Amino acid sequence: MARTIQGVLLGSPEIMRDYIAAFERTAPHIRLALPQEVVDPEAVTLALAWDPGADDFRPYPNLRLVSSIAAGVNGILASASLPGDVPLMRIAGESQAQMMAGFVTWHVLWHHRRFGDYLANQRQRHWQRLPKRDAGDVRIGLLGAGKMGGAVARALTALDYDVAIHSRSGRNLPAGVEGFSGTDGLERLAARSDILINLLPLTAETRGILNAELFSRLPSGAALVHVGRGEHLIEADLLAALENGQLSAASLDVFAIEPLPQAHPFWHHQRIVITPHDACDSTPNQVAQEVAEAMARMGDGQLPASVVDRHAGY
Amino acid sequence: MARTIQGVLLGSPEIMRDYIAAFERTAPHIRLALPQEVVDPEAVTLALAWDPGADDFRPYPNLRLVSSIAAGVNGILASASLPGDVPLMRIAGESQAQMMAGFVTWHVLWHHRRFGDYLANQRQRHWQRLPKRDAGDVRIGLLGAGKMGGAVARALTALDYDVAIHSRSGRNLPAGVEGFSGTDGLERLAARSDILINLLPLTAETRGILNAELFSRLPSGAALVHVGRGEHLIEADLLAALENGQLSAASLDVFAIEPLPQAHPFWHHQRIVITPHDACDSTPNQVAQEVAEAMARMGDGQLPASVVDRHAGY
Repeated sequence: MARTIQGVLLGSPEIMRDYIAAFERTAPHIRLALPQEVVDPEAVTLALAWDPGADDFRPYPNLRLVSSIAAGVNGILASASLPGDVPLMRIAGESQAQMMAGFVTWHVLWHHRRFGDYLANQRQRHWQRLPKRDAGDVRIGLLGAGKMGGAVARALTALDYDVAIHSRSGRNLPAGVEGFSGTDGLERLAARSDILINLLPLTAETRGILNAELFSRLPSGAALVHVGRGEHLIEADLLAALENGQLSAASLDVFAIEPLPQAHPFWHHQRIVITPHDACDSTPNQVAQEVAEAMARMGDGQLPASVVDRHAGY
Repeated sequence: MARTIQGVLLGSPEIMRDYIAAFERTAPHIRLALPQEVVDPEAVTLALAWDPGADDFRPYPNLRLVSSIAAGVNGILASASLPGDVPLMRIAGESQAQMMAGFVTWHVLWHHRRFGDYLANQRQRHWQRLPKRDAGDVRIGLLGAGKMGGAVARALTALDYDVAIHSRSGRNLPAGVEGFSGTDGLERLAARSDILINLLPLTAETRGILNAELFSRLPSGAALVHVGRGEHLIEADLLAALENGQLSAASLDVFAIEPLPQAHPFWHHQRIVITPHDACDSTPNQVAQEVAEAMARMGDGQLPASVVDRHAGY
């Protein structure tokens, strides 16, 4: 069938090695190798990368496609040797978006329905009903649209939450979801967000977007669910907002330094839930499937379906 | 507008008293009173009840409607003095069904995505990603259809779970949901339920339905989410199934004795999540609205929209 394609894995070997077997199963015409195993660097046309080093792309002059192994590409864009003229793609799987939707939905319900209080009461053998609000009276603000934002919005509207999204265009949103865009739109979205969810990609524009100024525009006592990238958040601003009550609680899946250092104050904060950058995974099989599809499209003279706009940064 | 209707509140005064103000706001033509405040028992045509005593209905010979304040009516049906010829209704609010859907969805995600492990890891400052399954590979079995079952099924299918329902008819189910009915159907539903959710009403047929025999038909390591009535569950069978690994975990919102006694082994069980019969509330305003609508329908010679089938028991 398809001609054999030589690929190289750029990034920590312990993460990257899993992909060799997945491609053997799912796309056996693509042969992957770690850099030290590559016999002929000029034969390598595909690079699969995750947080590659500054020079990692340099030995391969004939790359035709660079792919991330997940939705994020900021680590790849940061490599000085990334060739400027080769298409860069990210993994944009449906099942990843659904996994994210479930993860975010759990945290929204955690904050809305005060499940942390139920768990604390159970530890005290304390039987106490809690006051309730209808989901329709809980306003959710989503930063970031795209496949993941759409899946999250659909899951939350199915539970009757009042959902709005801020995105670049403010358009093409799921049914029943209000759209905002621009700086002014961000302020208006914040003002109606009892629970603010960050799903943004990391770009020059979004770095540090979760800061004291934005928190001050939320309704007092709002909650934050942060599943974007660590660099979106000014950590000291979050601690201050939790301290002064402007925020009531936060769910954090991503951090400026990962793994989160042992001494970090987030770990034992009473009103922060920590997860280890684990909201969703693209399985190696999915990656193999999407990359094989992209290579086939390129063989037909097309671009990959989920090609990255380098100017936008995602 | 409507003629003044005299109603009586039957049940614990601390629960029932809230309804007086709600009816004053929402349905001021209906005047509610506690039994000791009723001047003319023969003028009382409406009884609003929750766990009434055996003789509580006896003083009121001219009742035209008896209503529960929630979805359950088993406590009312148990009263020896309940008149046999008066329509009995339950509250079947949409917002209650949505509240139940959110509550159940949280527990399904808790079991599927192992959030208990994340919380335990956070207490240890331990950063550890967990293996994942797509929601589409997690089979959910729902006992009980109706408004609540439908809302739960729709919320879970929106997250891509593989949902099936066992109900009396096995028909009229939301899109994408497989239907089962009868004893044979119950066994087949159990065999495909990685997470079993009980939403049944309590009747002679469903009492004790969550027992060792049913648990043995689930896939090994299944989880239980129990939001029906305490009397559905054989408690010793649940503890044994958790002990021998047939069940991996359980979420329990209802209990044979409520509040759950301090000494009960469920409280501190590592793999049981306890909530205080709090999955959803019908707000007093909703009750006032539904009861006023029912009285208006009866004035037009119709039955209430959510009249109880006493033979079926719900």
